[in-house]
Amino acid sequence: MGSVIASMSMSLDGFVAGPNDEVDHLFAWYDAGRAGDEVFPPGALGSLVCGRRLFELTNAWGGRHPMGVHVFVVTHSVPDAWPREDRPFTFVTDGVASAVRQAKDLAGRRDIAIATPAITQQCLDLGLVDMLAVDLVPVLLGQGIPLLAGLARAPVELGTPAVVEGRGVTHLRYPVHH
Amino acid sequence: MGSVIASMSMSLDGFVAGPNDEVDHLFAWYDAGRAGDEVFPPGALGSLVCGRRLFELTNAWGGRHPMGVHVFVVTHSVPDAWPREDRPFTFVTDGVASAVRQAKDLAGRRDIAIATPAITQQCLDLGLVDMLAVDLVPVLLGQGIPLLAGLARAPVELGTPAVVEGRGVTHLRYPVHH
Repeated sequence: MGSVIASMSMSLDGFVAGPNDEVDHLFAWYDAGRAGDEVFPPGALGSLVCGRRLFELTNAWGGRHPMGVHVFVVTHSVPDAWPREDRPFTFVTDGVASAVRQAKDLAGRRDIAIATPAITQQCLDLGLVDMLAVDLVPVLLGQGIPLLAGLARAPVELGTPAVVEGRGVTHLRYPVHH
Repeated sequence: MGSVIASMSMSLDGFVAGPNDEVDHLFAWYDAGRAGDEVFPPGALGSLVCGRRLFELTNAWGGRHPMGVHVFVVTHSVPDAWPREDRPFTFVTDGVASAVRQAKDLAGRRDIAIATPAITQQCLDLGLVDMLAVDLVPVLLGQGIPLLAGLARAPVELGTPAVVEGRGVTHLRYPVHH
């Protein structure tokens, strides 16, 4: 069985985007690449779960997620003109737990990525996250969209992280204790 | 001239204490020690600046700070029965910049520690911090007292941190770009 991995770039003060969704500071390190230390090496990722907001913001990633995987979008209602047979998106209207279950079924032995803060928080509250992979960026944004806010079930104990030092980023992978 | 170093234990979600000032989770790693990697090795620290709140919370550390240094307490008014000649505390009522200046004068070539979130934030806004030393603890507290909130002058760019991996803690030292 694959792991459910919440993976995100975060400023040292805990934001995954600025107040107007700007991510320039948070992905400056990204162009330099991870030097073979990707959270999801080629073939490891089986599916991805995100919220409706990211789906809209990215305009459905132009029709296909850059990592080539099937995306499960948690939403209250299916957007107009979706789903499409030729596009790898499933819209899940009965909650996060259902989305993760469907994503796991599709992924098989591969991993499942959680890609948005709201879904990450809900999955943490439901005890569904196996690993928190934080790319910690050396900037203080002051305000913006927090990765981890409003957790209903806290404190959440994590394990000592695996650390990879990058240029302009510190990659931290925390096992989540259930 | 010494460096002004803001040094604190912080949960992965950015808190230096829980909602009731509890710090159990955040200092669990502390007993294990830093294995020779203290932010302030013996003799390196010359003085410390904190806010009135920490002074009250710790009950003036029983009369003397555990690191043996002179403490400058930023406050609106000098507390009753203070200052005392036999106790190494100075109360600064004309603001953070004045406290840091006095702390530097006393420290000489040694470093100056900033020890509370509110003072850290004000010092960051004033461009007075040279290094941010964060002991990042693998726990999500969900709520509490944030280390970095309400920065007036953001974003603040930091340098790539020096990283020391501990058991139950990741020591990160960020140079602050002025």
